Amino acid sequence: MQQYSQLTGLSRRKLLSLIGMTAGSAAMYQAMTSMGLASESGYKGPVKLEGDPKGASVLILGSGLAGMTAALELRQAGYKVQILEYNARPGGRNWTIRGGDSFTDIAGATQKCEFDEGLYVNPGPWRIPYHHNGLLAYCKRLGVTLQPFQQINHNAFLHSSKGFGGKPQRIRDIKTDFQGHVSELLAKVTQKGKLEGDVTKEDQEMLLEALKSWGALDSDYSYKQSLHTSEYRGYEKDPGGGLTAVPVPGKPIDLSDILSSGLWGSLENFALYEFQTTMFQPVGGIDMIGKAFAKEVGDLITYNAKVTKIAQDDKGVTVTYEDTQKPGTTQQASADWCVCTIPLTILSQIEINVGAPMQAAIEAVPYASSVKVGLQFKRRFWEEDDLIFGGVSYTDLPITQISYPSTDFNKAGKGVLLGCYTWNGPNSYEFTSMSPEERVQRAVDYGSQIHPQYKDEFENGVSWAWHRSPFTLGCAGDWTDEARKEHYENLCKIDGRIVLAGEHASYIPAWMEGAILSSLDAITRLHQRVVAG
Amino acid sequence: MQQYSQLTGLSRRKLLSLIGMTAGSAAMYQAMTSMGLASESGYKGPVKLEGDPKGASVLILGSGLAGMTAALELRQAGYKVQILEYNARPGGRNWTIRGGDSFTDIAGATQKCEFDEGLYVNPGPWRIPYHHNGLLAYCKRLGVTLQPFQQINHNAFLHSSKGFGGKPQRIRDIKTDFQGHVSELLAKVTQKGKLEGDVTKEDQEMLLEALKSWGALDSDYSYKQSLHTSEYRGYEKDPGGGLTAVPVPGKPIDLSDILSSGLWGSLENFALYEFQTTMFQPVGGIDMIGKAFAKEVGDLITYNAKVTKIAQDDKGVTVTYEDTQKPGTTQQASADWCVCTIPLTILSQIEINVGAPMQAAIEAVPYASSVKVGLQFKRRFWEEDDLIFGGVSYTDLPITQISYPSTDFNKAGKGVLLGCYTWNGPNSYEFTSMSPEERVQRAVDYGSQIHPQYKDEFENGVSWAWHRSPFTLGCAGDWTDEARKEHYENLCKIDGRIVLAGEHASYIPAWMEGAILSSLDAITRLHQRVVAG
Repeated sequence: MQQYSQLTGLSRRKLLSLIGMTAGSAAMYQAMTSMGLASESGYKGPVKLEGDPKGASVLILGSGLAGMTAALELRQAGYKVQILEYNARPGGRNWTIRGGDSFTDIAGATQKCEFDEGLYVNPGPWRIPYHHNGLLAYCKRLGVTLQPFQQINHNAFLHSSKGFGGKPQRIRDIKTDFQGHVSELLAKVTQKGKLEGDVTKEDQEMLLEALKSWGALDSDYSYKQSLHTSEYRGYEKDPGGGLTAVPVPGKPIDLSDILSSGLWGSLENFALYEFQTTMFQPVGGIDMIGKAFAKEVGDLITYNAKVTKIAQDDKGVTVTYEDTQKPGTTQQASADWCVCTIPLTILSQIEINVGAPMQAAIEAVPYASSVKVGLQFKRRFWEEDDLIFGGVSYTDLPITQISYPSTDFNKAGKGVLLGCYTWNGPNSYEFTSMSPEERVQRAVDYGSQIHPQYKDEFENGVSWAWHRSPFTLGCAGDWTDEARKEHYENLCKIDGRIVLAGEHASYIPAWMEGAILSSLDAITRLHQRVVAG
Repeated sequence: MQQYSQLTGLSRRKLLSLIGMTAGSAAMYQAMTSMGLASESGYKGPVKLEGDPKGASVLILGSGLAGMTAALELRQAGYKVQILEYNARPGGRNWTIRGGDSFTDIAGATQKCEFDEGLYVNPGPWRIPYHHNGLLAYCKRLGVTLQPFQQINHNAFLHSSKGFGGKPQRIRDIKTDFQGHVSELLAKVTQKGKLEGDVTKEDQEMLLEALKSWGALDSDYSYKQSLHTSEYRGYEKDPGGGLTAVPVPGKPIDLSDILSSGLWGSLENFALYEFQTTMFQPVGGIDMIGKAFAKEVGDLITYNAKVTKIAQDDKGVTVTYEDTQKPGTTQQASADWCVCTIPLTILSQIEINVGAPMQAAIEAVPYASSVKVGLQFKRRFWEEDDLIFGGVSYTDLPITQISYPSTDFNKAGKGVLLGCYTWNGPNSYEFTSMSPEERVQRAVDYGSQIHPQYKDEFENGVSWAWHRSPFTLGCAGDWTDEARKEHYENLCKIDGRIVLAGEHASYIPAWMEGAILSSLDAITRLHQRVVAG
C-alpha cells in the first residue's frame, strides 16, 4: 500500500483508470485493494508454500480447524504429517450436538442428547461473518454448503425484567423509535440554530433533509404516530386486502421509556461488523466444516491421544501421550517440527521445553467463560405465534439471549432453540456451576418470561459449559490489551522447532477465522525456516 | 380489541396473567394479539367458508395468486369452479424466467433466455416479508420450501455518480458513519445543555449513554477513527492471525461528504418494515408458489383464454373469450358468480356491465411502471472479489439498483444478477421505451461503473418492461390517497354477481400478500352472500 500513500484522491483515480484501461477487471480490483479503496483482509489468498521441504516431518497437536488447516497445507507442500487428537472425533470446538450423541464434562456429568432427527445445537462456533475470507475460502475448496445465518432479526425481542413491566418489545419498535426520536431532537436543535459553528449552514440544510429521511420525520421534523412512521416501525394493524384492509398506525414508544428500559443497549448488535449481513452457517451443523477437513486429513489423525509432554532438541520434537482408552499407558510420537494448537488452558499444564518468553505467554492468557443451552420444543411457536424467523432476542435475564434456528423456516414440526448463551461475567460463572440438567431447567424458566409458550412446548435439552470442557477448559482466548502488548508476539514466534497456532494466536479470538489465519501464518513461517535451513 | 381499550397497563397485565394461568400459551398469545400487545395481521388465519353453497358455480378470471387462492378455497367449500387464464401458464406475475424460456411483449419483441441450467430471474415479485402471514401460510400448506432473501447487505454498495468522484461506497461505512456523526452532534449539544426543556435532566444523562453505545462514540462523545469505531464500520486492514495480525482502523467518512453525496437517501432501505429481516424467497424461483397452487387447482384452468366481454344478469355471469391459439374464434363460459382478478389496465378495456361506481373505480387506478433486467456472468465476482453475498447496491444511475442472488452462496460458477430494477419515474419510462437488447446493453454499461468486472464477465441477459406486458400492461396498482378515498370501496364491493380481487384491490399493492388477502376477503363476502341468498 505504501507506494501509493502520497497520492491525492485525483491521482489515485487517474491511476485506477489507467490500470482499468490496460488490464482486466481483476487487475483493477487488485489495485483497488492495494490502494486501500477496498478493505484489506487478514486472509491473503491461498497459502503458497514454495520450495522443497525435503522429507521434513511435522507433528500437529490438535485436530481443530487450526490443526487440520496446517495438516492439509503441509502435506500438500510435501511434508510428512501426523496429528494427535484428544477427542474421539475431529473438529475440536467445531462441534455439533445431535440426537443420540453422548458427552461428558470434567465433573463427570454425562449427557445424552434426545433431539429428534435433523435437529442440532452448535455448542461452540456457529456463524461465519462475510469478511472471514479464509474460512469461506476453505468452505468453498472443501465443498461445505452454506446457508444464511440470521443474526439480525428486526422482529425478535428486546427484553428487560425492569423496563416495560417485563414485557418483551419488538426490536424494530425500539430501533426505529430510538432513531426517530434522536433524529427529531437533532433536527429541532438544528432548526433553532444551536449547531452554529459545528456544522456549516449549507450542511445544516442537507442534515435536516437527511434526518427527515433517515428518522422517518414528518414535514415539521417530528417523529409521530402515523402511517409514515408505520412504514418503518410497523403498524398496530397491518394493511390488508379488500374491505377490511385499512391499516392502523403503530404508536411510537416514548424516548423516555426507551431510555429508562435500557433496551437501547442491545441495538449495537445490529451494527457490529462481526454481526452484519450477510452471515453464514453450514447446512446441517457447524461441524460440517470439521468433517470436510477430516475428509482430507482424517487419515493422519490419531484419536484419544492425551498429550502429557512436549520435548524438543536441535534435532526434533518428541511428544508423549496417553491413549485415553488405555489409561496409564504412554506412547510417543516424533517429528522434525511441531505445530501445537492445544488451548493454552491445557498447554500451560503440560511439560514443554520452550523458552521463557513463550512459556510466559502460554501462561498469560485467560480463557473466556461461556455456556450454551439447546432446547427442543414440540413446535416452532416462535415462528407460528410470534413471526420470529431466525435471529436473536436479547434479555437482561441470566440466559442473555435466545437464538432461533436459521433452518427449516416456515415448516411445521419441532425445533431447537439456543435457549441460553452467556459470555463471561457472573451469569456465565453461575451457569457453569450448575449441573447440566439444572442449566436446562433454568433456561426454560427464564425463557418462559419471554416466550410463555415454553411451558407447554418444551421437550428436552442439553447444555455445555466451556470451562467444564475436558478438551479446552474454557471457551476461547480472552486477551487484554496489556497481555497482547507483552505476550502476543512471544506466543506466535517460532520457538526452536515448535510453533503455536489456534484462535488464541490471533486477533480474532473465539472465531474459526482466527484459528485458520493463525495456522496459515504459523505454517508459512515454519516452512520458510525449513526451506531456508 | 375495543373491549379492553379502557384498561390501564396494570389491569392489562393482570388480565394477561389470569389468562396465562387458566389457559395455555396459545390462548395467552391470542389475548395478547387482541389487546394490541402484538400487532394485528391483515391475514386472519385460514379462511372459514361455512355453510353449503348448494352447488353454486364460480367463474374465476385469471390464474394469478388471487385467482388460484379463490379457486382453492371455493372448490374446497363446495363450489363448482372454473378458471380462465390468458397465458399458457399459471401464476400471472408470479413468474420466473429460466434458460430456454421464450416470451413476447406487446411490441412483438420476443426474447429467448440463454441462462445456464439452475439460474433464473424473477421479473415480477421476488421476495416475501416475514409479516406477509397469508402468503407464508399458503407456502406452508402447499409445501413451498423457503430460503432467506437477503434484502439488507451491509457490504453492498451505495453509489452516486456525483458523490465521492463516482466511487461506490460500502453501505456499512455510510450507515455507521452517518449514525456516528449524528450521535456525536446530538451528544455534544446535550452536553452543552442545549436540549433544556425538550428532555429532562435525568433523561439527558441516559441519552448520552445511549448515544455513546449506539453511535460508537468514545469517552468524549466523539466519533473518530479508532479500533472501537472499526468494530462497527469495519477496518482498513482486518484483524488476522499470527505475526501479521494487527488490525488497522478504518477512517470514518466526513459528515459533510456523506451529506453532499446524497447517499444517505438510500439508508431508509435498511429500516423499512417491508424490507426488514427476515425476508424469504422460494427455493428455485418465485414461480414455485404459483406452481404449488397450480398443483392443486391446475385442473380447473383453461389456458390461452383472452376475455373479451363480461356480462351479468340476475341469474349469473357469462364471459366471452377468445382462444389465443385460434384467433378470431370466440367461446363462452358461464357461472352463478364471477371472481375477476384481471388487472385494471386490461379490465378497463373489456366490456363489463357493472354499476357506475365500480366502473369508475376500474378506470381510476394507474399502474406502476417497472423494468427488470437479468444478467448472466461467467463468475460470481461480486462474491469472489467484492465480498457481497446477496442484498442490493443502490445507485443514482438509471438502473437504480443491482441485486445479488440469495442462492448458491460461496460457490464457484456462473451467476445471474438483477442488473436493473426501476420503479416509476423517467428511468422506468426510458427503459420501457428501449428494445429488450438495448435494455440489457444499457444495464451492463451502467453497472460497470459500479462493478468494473462487468465488462469481462458478462455473458447474456433478458429484460422485462411491465408496461409492455401483454397480460398486465403495467406492473401493479399505483393508488393515490385521493383515488383510494373515492374509489377503493367501490372497487372491492360486490357488484351484482361479480367481485374483483387482486393486489389492486388491497392496501398492499404490488405484493403477493395483497393479492391473497384481497382474494380471501372477496370470497368470504361472496360466500356470505351465496349462503344468505
